[in-house]
Amino acid sequence: MKTDIEIAREARLENIAGIAEKVNIDLNEIHNYGKYIAKIPVKLIDEEKVAKSNLILVTAITPTKAGIGKTTTSIGLALGLQRIGKNAIVALREPSLGPCFGMKGGAAGGGYAQVLPMEDINLHFTGDFHAITSAHNMITALLDNYQYRNRGTDKYLKEVVWKRVLDVNDRNLRHIVTGLNGSENGAPAESGFEITPASEIMAILCLSRDLEDLKRRIGNIILGYFANGNTFSVADLEVAGAITVLLKDAINPNLVQTTENSPAIIHGGPFANIAHGCNSIIATKMAMTHADFVITEAGFGADLGAEKFFNIKCRKAGISPKLTVIVATTQALKMHGDVPLEDIKKKNIEGLKKGFDNLDKHIENMRSFGQTVIVALNKYGFDVDEEIELIKDHCEKQGVSFALNESFAKGGEGAVSLARAVISQIESNPSNNLSFTYEERDSPKVKIEKIAKQIYGAGSVVLSAKAKKKLVQIDKLGINHYPVCIAKTQYSFSDNAHAYGTMKGFTLTINDIVINNGAEFIVAIAGNIMRMPGLPAEPQAKQIDIINGFVEGLS
Amino acid sequence: MKTDIEIAREARLENIAGIAEKVNIDLNEIHNYGKYIAKIPVKLIDEEKVAKSNLILVTAITPTKAGIGKTTTSIGLALGLQRIGKNAIVALREPSLGPCFGMKGGAAGGGYAQVLPMEDINLHFTGDFHAITSAHNMITALLDNYQYRNRGTDKYLKEVVWKRVLDVNDRNLRHIVTGLNGSENGAPAESGFEITPASEIMAILCLSRDLEDLKRRIGNIILGYFANGNTFSVADLEVAGAITVLLKDAINPNLVQTTENSPAIIHGGPFANIAHGCNSIIATKMAMTHADFVITEAGFGADLGAEKFFNIKCRKAGISPKLTVIVATTQALKMHGDVPLEDIKKKNIEGLKKGFDNLDKHIENMRSFGQTVIVALNKYGFDVDEEIELIKDHCEKQGVSFALNESFAKGGEGAVSLARAVISQIESNPSNNLSFTYEERDSPKVKIEKIAKQIYGAGSVVLSAKAKKKLVQIDKLGINHYPVCIAKTQYSFSDNAHAYGTMKGFTLTINDIVINNGAEFIVAIAGNIMRMPGLPAEPQAKQIDIINGFVEGLS
Repeated sequence: MKTDIEIAREARLENIAGIAEKVNIDLNEIHNYGKYIAKIPVKLIDEEKVAKSNLILVTAITPTKAGIGKTTTSIGLALGLQRIGKNAIVALREPSLGPCFGMKGGAAGGGYAQVLPMEDINLHFTGDFHAITSAHNMITALLDNYQYRNRGTDKYLKEVVWKRVLDVNDRNLRHIVTGLNGSENGAPAESGFEITPASEIMAILCLSRDLEDLKRRIGNIILGYFANGNTFSVADLEVAGAITVLLKDAINPNLVQTTENSPAIIHGGPFANIAHGCNSIIATKMAMTHADFVITEAGFGADLGAEKFFNIKCRKAGISPKLTVIVATTQALKMHGDVPLEDIKKKNIEGLKKGFDNLDKHIENMRSFGQTVIVALNKYGFDVDEEIELIKDHCEKQGVSFALNESFAKGGEGAVSLARAVISQIESNPSNNLSFTYEERDSPKVKIEKIAKQIYGAGSVVLSAKAKKKLVQIDKLGINHYPVCIAKTQYSFSDNAHAYGTMKGFTLTINDIVINNGAEFIVAIAGNIMRMPGLPAEPQAKQIDIINGFVEGLS
Repeated sequence: MKTDIEIAREARLENIAGIAEKVNIDLNEIHNYGKYIAKIPVKLIDEEKVAKSNLILVTAITPTKAGIGKTTTSIGLALGLQRIGKNAIVALREPSLGPCFGMKGGAAGGGYAQVLPMEDINLHFTGDFHAITSAHNMITALLDNYQYRNRGTDKYLKEVVWKRVLDVNDRNLRHIVTGLNGSENGAPAESGFEITPASEIMAILCLSRDLEDLKRRIGNIILGYFANGNTFSVADLEVAGAITVLLKDAINPNLVQTTENSPAIIHGGPFANIAHGCNSIIATKMAMTHADFVITEAGFGADLGAEKFFNIKCRKAGISPKLTVIVATTQALKMHGDVPLEDIKKKNIEGLKKGFDNLDKHIENMRSFGQTVIVALNKYGFDVDEEIELIKDHCEKQGVSFALNESFAKGGEGAVSLARAVISQIESNPSNNLSFTYEERDSPKVKIEKIAKQIYGAGSVVLSAKAKKKLVQIDKLGINHYPVCIAKTQYSFSDNAHAYGTMKGFTLTINDIVINNGAEFIVAIAGNIMRMPGLPAEPQAKQIDIINGFVEGLS
């Protein structure tokens, strides 16, 4: 089979104006970036239309290192719906340059279910991540300057909690000391860089209603504390307006097309392990304004992405999916059935069966939100019928629909049965009203415990002394009502990346808590999850090249 | 008078396709960024047309903190030429976000001589700087990973000379230590950030012929040295292709328009104090392909920008201006005549006369390159006729033309006399063939001395031990033929920012030398010039805001 980039290159792209027209987006309002990409202004969102649209969430079982194919399935489902005559838009996150040049590769789908132009989407795209990086680091520069100018006075902050971000995998930047070499070069300070998808500004952009709301939230970001414990915010630094100016274009979602020329909206890119992992509310609502069916994804396994999608994004946006698709692969199921990594592509009925526990826990979790569930098996060439039948039977026993997703190899045609299953469920058996895992009035500690126990299957939660101190601070700030965003490894229900399958009764350790007062949630850091990834021994960058004007090595 | 942003907002912009059409740029080839900005592919450069076009350099006397108005004059001259029926394109550098949010403000001209849309040009524009920042820091991440993976082996580099960049003014980032907190977080290393315009990749982008040449130069960047003294380059890291991919769009110059709807090409943005200070060769040649008259600028005073423009850019590109315009203001002349800063807006004939020395040295310098010179006085509201007459008489005595530039207040109409003077000189008295300050065969030390003595007026040059060591390395590498790019304060002919006027016989101290093997020049750092600026006590960011969708506070 051809590589992703070969397929992308052979696709016949339509001018983006034609794509916009298909879903009645006003051509005078869009802002082109070349022939095939456009930004759509926030003001085109129509809440009445949003309320009438059918939202579908695509999530997954606990992933392997290779991923599950959630984005490919999301795009494939949109293609399948188009094939059966439905009006559908897929609403995705933007890829990050860090993993794209590191291990994971791009994030624009795969095979015959991609969003295009994939080279641009996987690289700088419309500059949204760069705008976020600039905005974040501009705040830091202004804050360091504030500290520099106020050293020795009572305006000086005793504690600074704002760091820096770059859209790159660079472990050396995790812990740094700045301001060295004499007083004209600033004051020595501990700092560090996180990857741009972990920036609070990314979360804010993804949760904001409009530019005014964005500016209000930017102003609310807590940068540090005075000796007397009082907070110091971006508004106190008097630069909320300037920072918002840097995001004036980034707030508008991006329109592109799929390999079969249907519209796709791509906007925002928080990772679900270290952040809330969903595309922007603005993008989802923009898609819902313009299509009867909107497919969106939540990052990594359903314990991470989908939990945050429901408890944070849906709660805040007032939206609710008609249906949740859980994507699985035979490889990942076998891995959860204790089959060694090197053997997961081989037939192994016993290993597969043993891995069903992981799937079942995700089904149970999605049902706890009131969701109707469909399991989509993302089919690989080495999958055998016997294994597929086994998974299908298992799903039927659980009372959930099952469908194959073959869009990677076959495009929309490969997702027609999945699309039909989706429509059938939405028509006959749509999800109930959302039930959340916790209520806003629950204390942060209770929220963490409810997620840990009900969603992860933990027996208990242990908080570090540092985390406990933060809970006191949160109480003092009067923000106990904020939702909780748990940063945790994507490879396990637990905080141990090597504990596959399902786990019962384990202890989840919360090492730190970070207040995101602009995003209006608190981040609880479980185990030793890193907010700045490193590069592997053989980075993907070595495969990337440009030859005769054609980009090679992106996937 | 209205503010820059008010004037910009009231201007009636033409669609960028209309602007492209005016100068016969093929509409099918341009790549839109919204309605008013487009990228033009490098392949549209036509060397035969370049050879026939008339290039005009705009430079200045030694500037005050407020600047001289070189960009405003460059744009004004283009407007003036248009008024008298000439076909002209102004080719400028892109502004940097650092100074824009710091002290200097934007860099898109001023008053009725601006390039538009100024909000976008002054902010993220088409993302060129962000692409350069990404490319630079991606190399660092890959290099740090290389060091991390090869620690304890003979592949490990003994010395790393590649740092990081951000497009922000942040003194705390000048000197940092990375890789702290245990071996899983990298290996402790001294590092630092420079501002993006100081990146070698910025210099490379501005000096490259095309994408292939860019890739070759990226590969040649020296990142560090092994214990045996051998170099380690980006090509050795095997990522020249991947880094070039990050620059595939940034290499194409940007088309915008002036306040009077004439075309402007803006591309690249090295600062002339810390880098070579000229827009890209590609942009200049693209403008020359499409217009009979092309106006380009060189950063800061003529000792910095123009010297590098001739000795580096023109030498490498094989281009040569027909004429050089030196911009002066009464304020700056008085400052050089020892008038205190707080009094330079008041009439002061004696102070003004005393300041002529600075102008005369710049005229002499430009003539040393074989240039015909015109002095353009950038007129301010407080200038009095008696002072203007005095400057005019002085120029006539020196045998150079004089013209007022009133385009800030009056647009193109205010630059008609300047435009006529320019045409008259080009027709009757064009510049001679270029004479360079030094030859390629001169040693780097001799090159530095020739620039210091002939252009700056220094009596002697002192090299630090560190700089001397670098000269040995340069000799060993066989790159003695590279031109020299001196990094020096813009406020004085000397390396002392407080020594105004002209100086004779002073000692120029070279503290360090940096090898830019990709840019193919060596940077000699004079005095204590910083390659990462800091922020002032009251940063411009506090004035920037967005209200009802309108950006405020940019100038």
